[in-house]
Amino acid sequence: MSHRFDLRGRFAIIRMAMSEDSRLSTIIEAARKRFAHFGVAKTTMNEIAHDIGMSKAALYYYFPDKDQLVVAVVDQDLEKFSAVVDTMINRPSRAAHKLKKYVSIRNAFFKELLTLAKIEQLGVADLFDPMFSHLRANLFKKEKELVAKILATGIREKEFTRASVEEHAELFVCGLIGLRSAALVINPVTPIHNIEVVDAQTRLFVDMFLKALRP
Amino acid sequence: MSHRFDLRGRFAIIRMAMSEDSRLSTIIEAARKRFAHFGVAKTTMNEIAHDIGMSKAALYYYFPDKDQLVVAVVDQDLEKFSAVVDTMINRPSRAAHKLKKYVSIRNAFFKELLTLAKIEQLGVADLFDPMFSHLRANLFKKEKELVAKILATGIREKEFTRASVEEHAELFVCGLIGLRSAALVINPVTPIHNIEVVDAQTRLFVDMFLKALRP
Repeated sequence: MSHRFDLRGRFAIIRMAMSEDSRLSTIIEAARKRFAHFGVAKTTMNEIAHDIGMSKAALYYYFPDKDQLVVAVVDQDLEKFSAVVDTMINRPSRAAHKLKKYVSIRNAFFKELLTLAKIEQLGVADLFDPMFSHLRANLFKKEKELVAKILATGIREKEFTRASVEEHAELFVCGLIGLRSAALVINPVTPIHNIEVVDAQTRLFVDMFLKALRP
Repeated sequence: MSHRFDLRGRFAIIRMAMSEDSRLSTIIEAARKRFAHFGVAKTTMNEIAHDIGMSKAALYYYFPDKDQLVVAVVDQDLEKFSAVVDTMINRPSRAAHKLKKYVSIRNAFFKELLTLAKIEQLGVADLFDPMFSHLRANLFKKEKELVAKILATGIREKEFTRASVEEHAELFVCGLIGLRSAALVINPVTPIHNIEVVDAQTRLFVDMFLKALRP
């Protein structure tokens, strides 16, 4: 590699990086639109390429297959979710209120994800697909951080009893994940409208959690 | 059908039913032994038939395949589990103690089930296998009944605050199922020794549940 100072070359690299970035978001936005209108299953890579006037080869250069495009779309949603929660957490209000708000933002987020994917039946396969393992791990880590933040505030403000933030954040997030997946264990093909049952259970879970955290 | 009173015929039917019953339990016990020693996967129908000196055809008459034999073995375990819990519930002690005891009996029961099946890795497939859907539904119903019994006692004795027994029993059981499956959602291939983590979480869940139920 040359160590020669080359301003023009550097600018060229920055320009390339920028156009890569904007190309990526153009693709992701096009994919998102297709997925939302027709569902993931009914969308082809050809259609996405056609929508943005890109060659199929160019599209495959960025995303070797549709699965990776799904991951990119959901990853972007995760970032948004995390940002929305962060804004909410930083507003002045009681920690108990924030924890409830967290759950309702989370529920809305999952409903949107399911709509995006046009998943009529929430199959077990969708939950455990190895393709999503990175996303799942990522989401779990983020959720624990966000909930830990809320719990730490509540304990600091003496709204909650002193308790292990780490342990309780993990129990809370696992509880939320668990109630949804318990519905699947009991009935492996849970139609989306049954999610209302899970939502009611989740509210009861949050109430109990808050009661137990009272000083 | 003849309505003629035929005592001898009736006795013959009862005798047949009894020998069917003892044949069934001989088969189930033989299967249980094989499963426990060699695991379900490594056991063949031939071996079970050979162990009890039964023809393969006769064995297949009672159990069309190995899966149904697995279901029969586990079903018997469920009955035992239910009986053990019932005895515990009927002893005089505090409801909070009974709820904790319930969880420890339950954990021991699941560990035994996993040992029986020689499942080294608790795969997602095992949890959701449609072959087990009847067992799952059955277990869920029984668990809800048993926990509801404990909660009702606690409320009657004013040890617990007044609350919907049905709702709370369901949340409790779904929570137990959920914490275990959450571990799988986060990491689809959870080695059995990781179950210790789930056990610790379960204890925290029970503690929170009991705290929230305080009058």
